[in-house]
Amino acid sequence: MFGDMDEVRIIEIKKSVFENNDKDADRLRSELKERGVFLLNLMSSPGSGKTTTLISALNMLKDRLRIAVMEADIDSDVDARKIKSATGIGTVQLHTGGMCHLDAEMTRQGLESLDLRETDLVILENVGNLVCPAEFDTGSCCNVMILSVPEGHDKPLKYPLMFSICDVVLINKIDVAPYFDFNMDECIANIRMRNPGAKVMPVCAKTGEGVGAFADWLLTEVRRWKNNN
Amino acid sequence: MFGDMDEVRIIEIKKSVFENNDKDADRLRSELKERGVFLLNLMSSPGSGKTTTLISALNMLKDRLRIAVMEADIDSDVDARKIKSATGIGTVQLHTGGMCHLDAEMTRQGLESLDLRETDLVILENVGNLVCPAEFDTGSCCNVMILSVPEGHDKPLKYPLMFSICDVVLINKIDVAPYFDFNMDECIANIRMRNPGAKVMPVCAKTGEGVGAFADWLLTEVRRWKNNN
Repeated sequence: MFGDMDEVRIIEIKKSVFENNDKDADRLRSELKERGVFLLNLMSSPGSGKTTTLISALNMLKDRLRIAVMEADIDSDVDARKIKSATGIGTVQLHTGGMCHLDAEMTRQGLESLDLRETDLVILENVGNLVCPAEFDTGSCCNVMILSVPEGHDKPLKYPLMFSICDVVLINKIDVAPYFDFNMDECIANIRMRNPGAKVMPVCAKTGEGVGAFADWLLTEVRRWKNNN
Repeated sequence: MFGDMDEVRIIEIKKSVFENNDKDADRLRSELKERGVFLLNLMSSPGSGKTTTLISALNMLKDRLRIAVMEADIDSDVDARKIKSATGIGTVQLHTGGMCHLDAEMTRQGLESLDLRETDLVILENVGNLVCPAEFDTGSCCNVMILSVPEGHDKPLKYPLMFSICDVVLINKIDVAPYFDFNMDECIANIRMRNPGAKVMPVCAKTGEGVGAFADWLLTEVRRWKNNN
């Protein structure tokens, strides 16, 4: 499925005609359900720690699930290489050609490069952006976002849609909280205002603190998805 | 021009038909040139410190220039209130109605709410987003972006357009550099790769370190713009 450890496949994603992305996303989700593949869509601002959090979680899960990763970026293959070398997990880099988000058809283009018969969990690391990715259903089985402490606790007030569509909000970089004017209680209250049902998990991707709880949650969700098959 | 100190005007921006945004932006720039008004477009990821940097710079400039601020956000008026209460400068909040960027026509809608006869410098704080705002010329006289230390030195590799269209890159939150794996030399090399002519200025908006150099640069640019009138 994947060649040399140093090699990362780069897929140039083509712009799709989103006549009805919601319908297309529902169709993709049904197909994934039939095949017993769980697709997680991970979103955040640039630099809030998506890749580092993934590496930490993947190393906890890789002996229990068959995993593949799709890294979406406008340019570069920095993240795909990082994930592959730190976890050994098969990773493809999706180049969006300047586009600010992925939709269901673009996600499908990435999935077609994977061997889904050998995969329980696919993680899509979306383009770093708190606005546009929230507007396009990728066909994922769940949406997870990361808000990092340095970004500030007021972000749910300014980017309402992103916070309202996510099942889980990871609050990352809690190790540096003493150096920032970050109020965790206020942050959680702001998230709850947008999305009362969201699970909120404080983590530190660098040290692994809290990532175990996220990995456990994800393992349960993937198994539930497969068992309901 | 502006009423009660506690009051912040909120303008709901209407979506424009960007048939030819580049032409419209050039037209707006010419009009601003004729009126001797300098428009600065400030961009960054969410939470990299646009508002705090502005407050620090505005307090250094407000006795030397007549300034107005336009704060663009999808929702909330948190930033406009902050700017107004910390600097006393007239500030309007532009609500983009979910849109991820401003174009020239949307910027014009904001400018129409200001008294430009009484203004030397207008600062537009764009929506927090490293992708879409880079694609739309707002008609500004210069583009400035902020990259903060916690976001990481690899961002110019992943968001090429934003770094290539900015005249100035402020590297903010240098006070917390010891707590992050941030390599300043590598960061500057990555910026130079995208934009050899960009001015790079390390700052700490919280303490004001380095902000004086940026304020001095801006004062010179505004005066040059007016004198060439």
